[in-house]
Amino acid sequence: MTKSIPELVNTGIHKLRAYEPGKSIDELERELGISPIVKMASNENPLGPSQKVKAAIQSHLDNLCVYPDADCYHLKTLLSEKLQVNNRQLVIGNGSNEVLELIAKVFLQESDEVIFSEHAFAMYSIFSEAMGATLVAVKDRNWCHDLDAMADAITEKTKIIFIANPNNPTGTWVSKGELKAFLKSVPEHVIVVLDEAYFEYVDQENYQSGLHYIDRFPNLVVTRTFSKVYGLANIRVGYAVASETIAGYMNRVRQPFNVSGISEVAAIAALGDQEYLLKSLETNALGMAQLQMGIGALNLDYIPSVANFLTIRVGDLAQDIYQALLRKGYIVRPLSGYGMTSYLRISVGTEAQNQGFLVALKEVLDSL
Amino acid sequence: MTKSIPELVNTGIHKLRAYEPGKSIDELERELGISPIVKMASNENPLGPSQKVKAAIQSHLDNLCVYPDADCYHLKTLLSEKLQVNNRQLVIGNGSNEVLELIAKVFLQESDEVIFSEHAFAMYSIFSEAMGATLVAVKDRNWCHDLDAMADAITEKTKIIFIANPNNPTGTWVSKGELKAFLKSVPEHVIVVLDEAYFEYVDQENYQSGLHYIDRFPNLVVTRTFSKVYGLANIRVGYAVASETIAGYMNRVRQPFNVSGISEVAAIAALGDQEYLLKSLETNALGMAQLQMGIGALNLDYIPSVANFLTIRVGDLAQDIYQALLRKGYIVRPLSGYGMTSYLRISVGTEAQNQGFLVALKEVLDSL
Repeated sequence: MTKSIPELVNTGIHKLRAYEPGKSIDELERELGISPIVKMASNENPLGPSQKVKAAIQSHLDNLCVYPDADCYHLKTLLSEKLQVNNRQLVIGNGSNEVLELIAKVFLQESDEVIFSEHAFAMYSIFSEAMGATLVAVKDRNWCHDLDAMADAITEKTKIIFIANPNNPTGTWVSKGELKAFLKSVPEHVIVVLDEAYFEYVDQENYQSGLHYIDRFPNLVVTRTFSKVYGLANIRVGYAVASETIAGYMNRVRQPFNVSGISEVAAIAALGDQEYLLKSLETNALGMAQLQMGIGALNLDYIPSVANFLTIRVGDLAQDIYQALLRKGYIVRPLSGYGMTSYLRISVGTEAQNQGFLVALKEVLDSL
Repeated sequence: MTKSIPELVNTGIHKLRAYEPGKSIDELERELGISPIVKMASNENPLGPSQKVKAAIQSHLDNLCVYPDADCYHLKTLLSEKLQVNNRQLVIGNGSNEVLELIAKVFLQESDEVIFSEHAFAMYSIFSEAMGATLVAVKDRNWCHDLDAMADAITEKTKIIFIANPNNPTGTWVSKGELKAFLKSVPEHVIVVLDEAYFEYVDQENYQSGLHYIDRFPNLVVTRTFSKVYGLANIRVGYAVASETIAGYMNRVRQPFNVSGISEVAAIAALGDQEYLLKSLETNALGMAQLQMGIGALNLDYIPSVANFLTIRVGDLAQDIYQALLRKGYIVRPLSGYGMTSYLRISVGTEAQNQGFLVALKEVLDSL
């Protein structure tokens, strides 16, 4: 009996939804005849790139023909100094998406269970499903990860728990005390992944990065990205920090040359541009206040956020509002894929973008 | 009983060798006090980058903060026209390494066997081992893939056969007739992967790209790269062409944003620079003749190559010769990892690089 191609494919793959690429700005501009379109949908840095990063890339262009360093030696050296960890505790990836996927590849089998919060980053379930693992979504509490319930969901089969802190798409966070108690309660056979893609934005005394616990808990992995506050979403660099043991396994399954040479150079330059970092944080803090005030003035609720986006409750007509905003030139993120059908997520933009968005939203709401 | 971290790791991972990154040129320059070091070890394009590619990257730099297109729409559109295939038959990867790995991820399980030729690209076994599959290395014939023996090695458990055409590190190729007969003989439950990383260099009437057969054999996948003749090794773009069914599965497991936006823009510009392509091919043809003549004059044998590298037989002292060449400023590739302990692989360089290498090699041989 000859098997067909679909019968040859691994079980987990069939469950994966085919990825639906969003429309690009240039396509939308052509379709709608509006220009410029303002994209507030992907939690990108609205400032545009750091001049230091641009200069670093420009002076690297003569190296295009040459393979990059297979292990991002220079970036790892810089990061290890900055983070006060050993080089061998670091894994550099093609975006933090890749480091998250490496964790799944190292640890997950079909018999395993993976725990995450119900409104957490979609990629956790995608990677886990691709490995054939069973997904265990735990209800959250006031849009926050319910760490007690997540701990209660642990079974003999649990292999990985994903925690986004702050969480996307809610912008909520878990406190220092909750995190510590949780880490202490998790058995050693469970890998805890703390996704800190948005950690740089957090300005809360009671927030603690998982990096603080990295030497204490050998089952802990912290992931971060250059796509957000460092403004490098276009060129894909993220990293993981873990015990040397876990990082070693991740580096074994990682492809050599997984990170573009230009991207490594850009990430190094970004780490060196403190002024850009501070300006980005300041822009975000001011923009967040501006959006919250504006949304409040429209009598809409929002989920208090410590990240660079705000998730607002617009009601049952969320999809219509999303479409109407699009026609006015503003792309925001509908959250029906996360089961949050009454919500839209808005990335914090520049002052002008935020103002323009608030005006557009008011017009849309008034027209309903 | 609590399991330790190594006990939690998937079986295949333990067999993987930790990747040993090679020394970078700048490290070697510092260590040896020689500058410049000439790297003829990674089959890179010796011309340096296309000016059109550099310009395209420069005009893209203001997009660094924005996520790339998740599906490389513009690159796929251009490639589909050039290759006369449907957009949905294409998979764009972070180097052809990634598309090769996607194939393994879609199809391989622990119970499967993977067939490849004994002196084939090392990555095939690395990806297969990571998925826990059993490796079946088939002896080659005069440094060529022995397709008859590979067909004979097929069992009920065979899931994938990898064929590099031309092959790395030998530079040999399989003829049109051999390839066609082989494809016809392979049962449909076996996926045939034709790795054509070096196909642009082949100038043989009797060579046929697998693309010619892509609509006829639904179990065929052809992979290619922008790292060689297009001169973009630093920034990682490769692609696969297959049936819509297989490409669809590969795109499901592929991460959105797996290709850097800069890399997509660069690949598009590279496809548009016909002059650079022709100059690269001409440089390679002249350099290959120069190296073959020079190696012949030193009374050394080499494996006739249709790619951009030449594998030469230097005898039992290959490792010493490699080290001595290093001290003279030439990095070449020792092949003991491929079980070819008497051989060194030399990438074709510019005329001056080839000449310098031949002089250095003669000095080294004279000093033995």
